[in-house]
Amino acid sequence: MPVSAKTLAGMQKSSWIRQMFEAGEKLKLKLGKDNVFDVSIGNPVAEPPPEFKQELIQIARKPVSGMHRYMPNSGYMHTRNAVAKHLSAEFGLNFGADDIIMTCGAAGALNIALKTVLNPGDEVIVISPYFPEYLSYIDNHSGRVIVVVTRPDFVPSIDELHMAIGPATRGVIINSPNNPTGIVYSDGFLNDLAQLLKNKSSRFGQPVYLISDEPYRRIIYDGAKYPAPVCHYTETLITSSYSKDLSLPGERIGYLAVNPNISDREELVAGMVYSNRILGFVNAPALMQYLVSGLQTARVSVDDYQRKRDYFYQALQTVGYEVLKPAGAFYMFPKTPVDDDVAFVKQLMEFGVLAVPGSGFGCPGYMRLSFCVDDKTIEGAITGLNKAIKLW
Amino acid sequence: MPVSAKTLAGMQKSSWIRQMFEAGEKLKLKLGKDNVFDVSIGNPVAEPPPEFKQELIQIARKPVSGMHRYMPNSGYMHTRNAVAKHLSAEFGLNFGADDIIMTCGAAGALNIALKTVLNPGDEVIVISPYFPEYLSYIDNHSGRVIVVVTRPDFVPSIDELHMAIGPATRGVIINSPNNPTGIVYSDGFLNDLAQLLKNKSSRFGQPVYLISDEPYRRIIYDGAKYPAPVCHYTETLITSSYSKDLSLPGERIGYLAVNPNISDREELVAGMVYSNRILGFVNAPALMQYLVSGLQTARVSVDDYQRKRDYFYQALQTVGYEVLKPAGAFYMFPKTPVDDDVAFVKQLMEFGVLAVPGSGFGCPGYMRLSFCVDDKTIEGAITGLNKAIKLW
Repeated sequence: MPVSAKTLAGMQKSSWIRQMFEAGEKLKLKLGKDNVFDVSIGNPVAEPPPEFKQELIQIARKPVSGMHRYMPNSGYMHTRNAVAKHLSAEFGLNFGADDIIMTCGAAGALNIALKTVLNPGDEVIVISPYFPEYLSYIDNHSGRVIVVVTRPDFVPSIDELHMAIGPATRGVIINSPNNPTGIVYSDGFLNDLAQLLKNKSSRFGQPVYLISDEPYRRIIYDGAKYPAPVCHYTETLITSSYSKDLSLPGERIGYLAVNPNISDREELVAGMVYSNRILGFVNAPALMQYLVSGLQTARVSVDDYQRKRDYFYQALQTVGYEVLKPAGAFYMFPKTPVDDDVAFVKQLMEFGVLAVPGSGFGCPGYMRLSFCVDDKTIEGAITGLNKAIKLW
Repeated sequence: MPVSAKTLAGMQKSSWIRQMFEAGEKLKLKLGKDNVFDVSIGNPVAEPPPEFKQELIQIARKPVSGMHRYMPNSGYMHTRNAVAKHLSAEFGLNFGADDIIMTCGAAGALNIALKTVLNPGDEVIVISPYFPEYLSYIDNHSGRVIVVVTRPDFVPSIDELHMAIGPATRGVIINSPNNPTGIVYSDGFLNDLAQLLKNKSSRFGQPVYLISDEPYRRIIYDGAKYPAPVCHYTETLITSSYSKDLSLPGERIGYLAVNPNISDREELVAGMVYSNRILGFVNAPALMQYLVSGLQTARVSVDDYQRKRDYFYQALQTVGYEVLKPAGAFYMFPKTPVDDDVAFVKQLMEFGVLAVPGSGFGCPGYMRLSFCVDDKTIEGAITGLNKAIKLW
């Protein structure tokens, strides 16, 4: 066996997602690409905003000497300053460059945070439905996953969190706006959560970190102001990226930011910079650091995503799906008409629709439909979803 | 304590390197930047070759639709094809795109390889003096480091390797051209090594992988042909990057390639693609993948590095240091005139020279001097090295 037991187990576990992906590819061959409506992936079709393209041309024409070299593992000072300045304005807290580490996407940020704080067997709370990679990231660094289930409103109950958090709990990962549900946690909920975590931290004599994974923070609808976890709780780590708001998921550019008042800030940040190095990320890609420095306020059209959301949500309701209206991100998470979400998603394939079963997010009986796709794909998906629901 | 016990121990261990770095920064303030000669770092001052700059301008002006999106975790097919084609020509083996995974630098490649093959407690052989990050990378994935010492010629003895490799050995990491010594292993040595690994593999009933870390493969002197480990041994994984030959270390672009005839190739590669995803690398930076596709034969001036090597080597000998002539890479690894390399390097600081003690590479009594710096820095370093050796 060439791969380790753990790798093999992980590969087998994700192999049904792979099988569905492969089934989808076969479907495209069979029905023709134009008759397959892929709403399974969170890979935005939106191009980066024009400011990004202009900035790239400018820097290509007038490259800065040494810009592709190693820089400190935390990233370029001018980039960290730009991020800190923008976060300060956004959150009303006084971030400095030393509160920021530029990372290889939010995934890199999460891994360096977990690597830094977890002793073997330490527990991390994950809210279901969850982004499935969280489970791997925690396991990468010898942590134990504790799942708290949230149904039907997808907001965790403070009582259940209270029961789940014990002396071995080192952190709680939240993801608002949420993948896959589109839920955005309210200030009221965050306040209650902060109170709970404060109590637990003081009871157990060490901070329970709130790891706020916010790559969708700027994809938020109806003109709402983002209720920011970091404003409610001091022991907060923010992991984020430019993958969604600048539509750059392939470039692996993101950051980790700590609340400027977090306990033992200097040692914690030094630990995370060290982890960035020893995990083999080394530093966030240099050119992308240069580019995002000047693009802190640029973003793709949220209005366009909102239009897609409104159209898709309305259509799903009309057709008869039970679904919450997403307040952010670009996913719908309706109930499947039958409990067996995998069977239903296979059924959908027969109508040319590719979706992800809720089971992939630890939440059977639901499915994820992405709307970061072009309008024709959404329209085709709705037609298929309409046909499929009528069979059950 | 905000960071885990292991992180704290790692940070403390590397803290003396940090202290030296900080001492160097203070020195620059004290003596003035122009009077400090920093030969401590492997961060090339050479700019990327003109072809890179042209390609960047071209792609910035005419971006390909979707080029910044997620692609398969293994990387763009056209990039993997380009790398495979070039490796095939370079090594006379028939590489295909499925033998290549684009990675976040060679560091990313090493981590995904180790993550994939190591069960807890599996052993990996490391040759001393070693690139110190290898120890962290092995530990990241629950492996055990077994060090084989090589002195004074820096080529490991086959007998010692024979003694070190047992049933728990999963791999041997070699690094030719070598950081820090500049040694390039000969075809004769690689042949003997391959024979040993074949015997061990068949005795223990599983392949002992040769992990050939080759980021300096194209920085090789005197017109020599690179003796390629992958041509000698089937169970070889190549980890490499464009950091050195295109002078792009900050961009984190590299690859992992397997010998096309490696055992259980499909499962092994699938495992490594999976590891690329779950370790949070996800994929190598997209734009850099596009750029390196067309730059497989471009490189920085090796002649210029050779000129620096010749000058530096000659001067070190004249001044009285015992040093081997590097056949590749861009480091000198002379003996320190006293056994206490840390003390000597501190002494060097008084003459404005920043070097790295051999202890940092598991090899006390030596020091590393980098010549990927400008000529003035080398000249200033020689003056300081001359003054320092006279004191002992």
